Amino acid sequence: MKFKIAIIGTGKVAWHFSTSLENAGHIITEVYGRDLAKARRLTSQLYDTDAQDHLDFTESAAEIFIVAVADDAISEVADAVLLPENSILVHTSGTVPLEVLGYSSAEHTGVVYPLQSFSLHRTVTWEEVPILLEAEDPDTLSKLKKLVKTLSAQHYVVRSKDRNAVHVAAVFASNFTNHMIRIAEEIMLRQGLDFEMIKPLIIEQISKCLELGPKAAQTGPASREDMETLENHHLFLQYNDQLAEIYRLISQDIIDSQ
Amino acid sequence: MKFKIAIIGTGKVAWHFSTSLENAGHIITEVYGRDLAKARRLTSQLYDTDAQDHLDFTESAAEIFIVAVADDAISEVADAVLLPENSILVHTSGTVPLEVLGYSSAEHTGVVYPLQSFSLHRTVTWEEVPILLEAEDPDTLSKLKKLVKTLSAQHYVVRSKDRNAVHVAAVFASNFTNHMIRIAEEIMLRQGLDFEMIKPLIIEQISKCLELGPKAAQTGPASREDMETLENHHLFLQYNDQLAEIYRLISQDIIDSQ
Repeated sequence: MKFKIAIIGTGKVAWHFSTSLENAGHIITEVYGRDLAKARRLTSQLYDTDAQDHLDFTESAAEIFIVAVADDAISEVADAVLLPENSILVHTSGTVPLEVLGYSSAEHTGVVYPLQSFSLHRTVTWEEVPILLEAEDPDTLSKLKKLVKTLSAQHYVVRSKDRNAVHVAAVFASNFTNHMIRIAEEIMLRQGLDFEMIKPLIIEQISKCLELGPKAAQTGPASREDMETLENHHLFLQYNDQLAEIYRLISQDIIDSQ
Repeated sequence: MKFKIAIIGTGKVAWHFSTSLENAGHIITEVYGRDLAKARRLTSQLYDTDAQDHLDFTESAAEIFIVAVADDAISEVADAVLLPENSILVHTSGTVPLEVLGYSSAEHTGVVYPLQSFSLHRTVTWEEVPILLEAEDPDTLSKLKKLVKTLSAQHYVVRSKDRNAVHVAAVFASNFTNHMIRIAEEIMLRQGLDFEMIKPLIIEQISKCLELGPKAAQTGPASREDMETLENHHLFLQYNDQLAEIYRLISQDIIDSQ
């Protein structure tokens, strides 16, 4: 099933969706950008797509309108966008509830949230991107399922309240794990040590964690309740109070969750 | 260069060192365990090794004695062990300084700290295990380098003070990343959601982090300083004060380290 789709936004998610959906055989009719130059940069990568800097889509041939803008701009865009009859308006955010689209001119609304960390210069392997779907009515949900299937992505139907929980979990699993590695890197660099030394440990720990589950995979001074080492590490980190407090708090949480 | 080696300890590190060193052509003369049955369980995996529950090694043919016991037992073992002339006594800990072996009967002392998270039922790929070496004298250091080369492991010469910093960094990079994933899993399970959904994100984030470095790889609400989402997530976590505080503190640290 092929759709005509308009993309509202010019960021990473807009780029990956528009190029991948076109590759999957859909037609991208328009790309909207507040900054027309940015919209043109994206449409130049597409086969035959108009760039526009206004939200009047009443003449558009599209059936599905994908809002891929910053979270705090979604409701504003939804309120302002003018859509043809019988259109489906979806956003792509993990945090914004479906209801935010409720005041728009769209007859059908939904959410298509790709649970993945996108970068402009990395190819997206859609087979490995879980997409969280939500829609106000079953017909729309069924169309959105068909849409994401054309990308070979896995999908999960998740309500707004649960999608928010997934987003919080994703922050811990992705942004916060990344920051733990950032802190490790800084400790190494401050001491004049080679960060490369730590990389095999990270790879082994993560693969063990995904294989055995994080509870069974845990090791280290906190899980052993080795108070002497915890105290020694805490002292080492006194050069940065915030870091010392992060160390203390996470160690305590590891101890508490044994 | 082949060595005769005695292993003091029966834990994960003792198991992996003794079996791997034997495979590499060295002779494991004795294994010491406070619990003789545990020492026998390990020697039963080895070609021709005696199990013993006393620390008198004066009759041992070994030249290198590897202490692989809990950190807080190392100094006690080092003080009690009786060694033949000209022996090298090493421990395998990331946190305990070399000097702790200074009161032992060993003529030469050193540290052989494998910077990896070992599990009993996972094979160790030594090529991917950085080993941190330290020794009191250059001859001993040279012998320890030869020893770890037979395992095909990479080695780094690191002083006690720096080794402690590496250990703190390793706790962040390994134990704390694992715990962030543990928290993510619990948020998902509490909501009745499938933890599998998050796994592709973890894999992509870690590979991006190792490829681009953690600073460039960071995304998410804290790095965007999206205060509305941070506040919303913090509210979501109010069911567990400690978790809410971990969220707040790490987000603040991400903001501060932009």
